[in-house]
Amino acid sequence: MLELETERTELLEKIEDLLERKQYAQLRDLLLPLEAQDIAVLCGELDDRVPLVFRLLPKEQAAEVFVELDSDEQELLIRSFSNTELKEVLDELYLDDTVDIVEEMPAGVVKRILQHSDPETRKSINEILKYPEDSAGSIMTTEFVDLKETMTVEDALKRIRRTGPDKETINICYVIDDRRHLLGYLSIRTLLLSEEDDIIGEIMDTNVISANTLDDQEDVAQTLNKYDFLALPVVDTENRLVGIVTVDDAMDVLQEEATEDIEKMAAILPGDKPYLKTGVIETWKARTPWLMLLMLSATFTGMILTHFENSLAAVPVLTSYIPMLSGTGGNSGTQASTAVIRALSLGEVRFGDLLRVVWKECRVALVCGLCLAIANFAKMMAVDRWLLGNPSVTPAVAAVVCSTLVGTVACAKLVGASLPILAEKIGFDPAVMASPFISTIVDALSLLIYFRFAIWILGI
Amino acid sequence: MLELETERTELLEKIEDLLERKQYAQLRDLLLPLEAQDIAVLCGELDDRVPLVFRLLPKEQAAEVFVELDSDEQELLIRSFSNTELKEVLDELYLDDTVDIVEEMPAGVVKRILQHSDPETRKSINEILKYPEDSAGSIMTTEFVDLKETMTVEDALKRIRRTGPDKETINICYVIDDRRHLLGYLSIRTLLLSEEDDIIGEIMDTNVISANTLDDQEDVAQTLNKYDFLALPVVDTENRLVGIVTVDDAMDVLQEEATEDIEKMAAILPGDKPYLKTGVIETWKARTPWLMLLMLSATFTGMILTHFENSLAAVPVLTSYIPMLSGTGGNSGTQASTAVIRALSLGEVRFGDLLRVVWKECRVALVCGLCLAIANFAKMMAVDRWLLGNPSVTPAVAAVVCSTLVGTVACAKLVGASLPILAEKIGFDPAVMASPFISTIVDALSLLIYFRFAIWILGI
Repeated sequence: MLELETERTELLEKIEDLLERKQYAQLRDLLLPLEAQDIAVLCGELDDRVPLVFRLLPKEQAAEVFVELDSDEQELLIRSFSNTELKEVLDELYLDDTVDIVEEMPAGVVKRILQHSDPETRKSINEILKYPEDSAGSIMTTEFVDLKETMTVEDALKRIRRTGPDKETINICYVIDDRRHLLGYLSIRTLLLSEEDDIIGEIMDTNVISANTLDDQEDVAQTLNKYDFLALPVVDTENRLVGIVTVDDAMDVLQEEATEDIEKMAAILPGDKPYLKTGVIETWKARTPWLMLLMLSATFTGMILTHFENSLAAVPVLTSYIPMLSGTGGNSGTQASTAVIRALSLGEVRFGDLLRVVWKECRVALVCGLCLAIANFAKMMAVDRWLLGNPSVTPAVAAVVCSTLVGTVACAKLVGASLPILAEKIGFDPAVMASPFISTIVDALSLLIYFRFAIWILGI
Repeated sequence: MLELETERTELLEKIEDLLERKQYAQLRDLLLPLEAQDIAVLCGELDDRVPLVFRLLPKEQAAEVFVELDSDEQELLIRSFSNTELKEVLDELYLDDTVDIVEEMPAGVVKRILQHSDPETRKSINEILKYPEDSAGSIMTTEFVDLKETMTVEDALKRIRRTGPDKETINICYVIDDRRHLLGYLSIRTLLLSEEDDIIGEIMDTNVISANTLDDQEDVAQTLNKYDFLALPVVDTENRLVGIVTVDDAMDVLQEEATEDIEKMAAILPGDKPYLKTGVIETWKARTPWLMLLMLSATFTGMILTHFENSLAAVPVLTSYIPMLSGTGGNSGTQASTAVIRALSLGEVRFGDLLRVVWKECRVALVCGLCLAIANFAKMMAVDRWLLGNPSVTPAVAAVVCSTLVGTVACAKLVGASLPILAEKIGFDPAVMASPFISTIVDALSLLIYFRFAIWILGI
């Protein structure tokens, strides 16, 4: 595990040195014991020397490294491959990895890849490419072990020994009938622990949980995670087994979806590249739309302030508490919306829970608001009035600010908690209803509450 | 898969009806084909009838359901168990699940569990309990398949058939010497695809990636995910194999850590219970500390506003743009900090990348800031001055607001991107340096910039 940066740097220096001195045999020996993922990271720093290093690796390891490279490095390599080399690499790849690569390549490269895949693979690639992005079909692999009900354990093990090397996993085997309907499944453990003449149909588990090709990839990954499966079968509308999704791909999906949620909550349009690989213009494109929208929607808060300009002129000290009020309102709303959005995405909260959520947030808001109001009253009297010697901070002004705090926190928690649930109900993405959006609404609400209390208590 | 709420409600009604009519045989038949995770969810609604339902299940399924229950339901069940029943359930559990349960139970219950475990298990539980929370040791299981170098494939398969039923996984087997040093590993696939008289020492993979018992559980999960492993061996300081972490537990860790990061970014102290299971007081305790701290730190923005009270009195319209400026600053900072925090937690960015990150954010900030400033200038002239007919919105005022926008976005992006990296370097949690914290700093900075430009351009 190349944990430490120093270790990686040292290794990179060694590789560059060996490349310069053309000590290829030594370089090969250095790379052989490394994991594909680590070699791929190192390749990221070698630029146009990647094809050279790549050719030193044995076929199987080369293919593993290839899968882990960034798509632009993959493209560079494919362009440098002879037709024979391309075919060799393609033969070693698992189908779902080939599909991932094909999806990222420009048309010319895709054509070359398809030309050099065997007809069987080409057909499967084309089929998987037809499934919508983010569907179970688009992330599945068609390389699984299928068995017949009537086989004995001995037959099954023979079949696994024969076909196993090309399968993505042999840990779970699926039992299908002649028309490929999914009948059951069994783990390799069950097979190994059974007698040789046991019949598959009798020892298989027939309570199969499966996904449909069009199911959302996130739901598939959550299901795999919930039931602790190593793979989930994917069936078409007629319950015919067409592929499986393996746990490693499900884990990647969960990580990606978490990143996407986090980005949306921060008002960033989600992208699919790592931070440092995303260019300035791409980053700008991902960030500006929401910034622009939120900036323009602040027109409302501006209008409210303009409307109450005379009140502020009468008691100017009120102005200095506006950032604190809007900050606290924003933070309270963010807390509630974030908690609810995450709970929605983990399946802990559904639309039917709306009233329970609102009732809970009401009570939390009351306790939070009172605490903050008391602390703030004390602070305004002790620090602002006494320590900083500002005589315009009167108890009446403090009462206005603190009553507003209670009201703002209550509004913020209610809006923050209910908007994401309502958004999901009408088919919007709840993550978009997060922090920045909620803050903008709460900002306006808190100002209205502020001036209402100022008029009541101070009579301005 | 009990996807739909309606399906779950229907099933629950059927169960309650059967319970009422004491149709236990029928109830058992209804539950048998369900997955343990789904039965556990249903149990959550059955309250004190859980022990009754639980006793209907066959031993193995009962144990599977038991693991999936909430800890208070587990406690209720354990208290209702006879000693024999407790022993039966414990015998069926995997060691890491038992440890998880023991960690959540009050002392009296723990004592009873330990009394009814066999001596071997008791010793293992006590050892795992010694590892710090969130370490690899605390989430590992000691039930793995170990093989000797000198065995043949036939010996190994025999050993797996004999000891397999009690192991958490047989998909990956570990090769150790007489003193339990980890020498290599092989997958069940390698075993099955080899000849019966092949020697384990010759076919095993000796490039083992392992974790140390004290490694952070998040690092372990990331490593498993990175290399697409089904399990990762855990060794002590002398490279002796003490346990393994399996992919299902790693997936849970990644989900939990993502939730924790999201909570911290929203200024919530992370908890370990689902949203609806967390009480009002607990939620209040998790949310108030940061709210309070951020509220009090807004004193600085208040002081800045008080200091420039006369400037605001001279050009009152300036006040109405404060919320927009602080909102945009906060949002810009949030975008940068969130992107960097997620990249840090996925291992895409390290401290050494600080300058690259800052350079990237500088350029993004410039383009973003200019875009926003131009749009805002147009909006202030067209909407605020012309449409809303506010004559005090002069081009000079718009120039002040728009210059401040550029400066604020630049500050926000720089502070937002660099603080998390610096925090990680000095051993702080970068996620805490997120949205609310950054906003508070940026609020103060943006006001200082605002008044600086107001003094320069408007000469007040």
